[in-house]
Amino acid sequence: MPYPPLFTLSCPLVLASGSPRRRQFLQEWGLPFTVDVPQGPEPRPMPGESPAAYALRAARSKGAVTAARHPGALTLAADTVVTVDGDILGKPGSERDALSMLRRLAGRTHQVVTGVCLILPDGTEQSFSDSTDVTFAPWPHAMLAAYARTGEPADKAGAYAIQGQGAFLVEHISGSWSTVVGLPITEIARRLAAAGLLAPVA
Amino acid sequence: MPYPPLFTLSCPLVLASGSPRRRQFLQEWGLPFTVDVPQGPEPRPMPGESPAAYALRAARSKGAVTAARHPGALTLAADTVVTVDGDILGKPGSERDALSMLRRLAGRTHQVVTGVCLILPDGTEQSFSDSTDVTFAPWPHAMLAAYARTGEPADKAGAYAIQGQGAFLVEHISGSWSTVVGLPITEIARRLAAAGLLAPVA
Repeated sequence: MPYPPLFTLSCPLVLASGSPRRRQFLQEWGLPFTVDVPQGPEPRPMPGESPAAYALRAARSKGAVTAARHPGALTLAADTVVTVDGDILGKPGSERDALSMLRRLAGRTHQVVTGVCLILPDGTEQSFSDSTDVTFAPWPHAMLAAYARTGEPADKAGAYAIQGQGAFLVEHISGSWSTVVGLPITEIARRLAAAGLLAPVA
Repeated sequence: MPYPPLFTLSCPLVLASGSPRRRQFLQEWGLPFTVDVPQGPEPRPMPGESPAAYALRAARSKGAVTAARHPGALTLAADTVVTVDGDILGKPGSERDALSMLRRLAGRTHQVVTGVCLILPDGTEQSFSDSTDVTFAPWPHAMLAAYARTGEPADKAGAYAIQGQGAFLVEHISGSWSTVVGLPITEIARRLAAAGLLAPVA
């Protein structure tokens, strides 16, 4: 972080997510935090569950486990899903799977939905979800295949990272960029400021 | 760059921009490039000149100087301006100036316009500009002042960086995210692929 911190937090912050992108994004803020990721498989979507409801449920499930281990801390959990035609795209299981997702997304608009669960030091919970429309350029097969081969898609919902090499895929977004990265930072900051936990550095 | 390169270029690439953000963004692609930034003051907007025309003119001016020094290379130049109410906001001259710009942008929508100039190895030029709408959250004075104090706004048009700590300012964008960063990567890649200079790694 090349600049001094912008905010101070009045309590310890625990990030209940193993995502390197969320970690890096939070580091840029200069807030001290620790990472404690609940073990075990992620919940799977239930029949008829909306993408937003599923992302929220997954975030709350991670948040609850981590918060129980860190009384007095602020726990931040998030889960991001990519959805198209009502289907939820998870992380691809193989390069072939990644290419198939990328081909499905090319040349059209999908939604990236992030669910966030904040558990405050007093135990109260605030949860919300946010959705952003993302439109892919109509790249030909060879370009998508080359991207799948880089390995970047492997651990990403929907098989791409908007802030990595995958940036070339995205033609247009409508909504919050940080929601696509997986941490809707404006809304998180607004809620923490309203709760009196986050303040600007004097 | 944690992943292998996605593209290959059939000629040397020279970036005619001193912006660390453009450099970092381009590095993530894994393309080799050198940086050669023309010296001298940036052109200033002319009376009645539109933001897009000004950004294009500034990019073409940088591109022409650099391309002349690198025959046979691909030169990439870009210039980004922030515009609100028809005014062009440049880089703030002071912290006070930065805060004044941030207060002007808070709670409303402005445009970020990036002009791009590509000079191909055969000497032909391709120029284009792209505009993205960016909406700031209505942060109070103290938050904006704290951000101005970090120093991050100092060398940025419009006094913020969307991919840095300034991410907390931005509530919504409509358009290309990479245009806001200052390098509309999807359109650049499309043009270079169409010109036969950029190809996916086999």
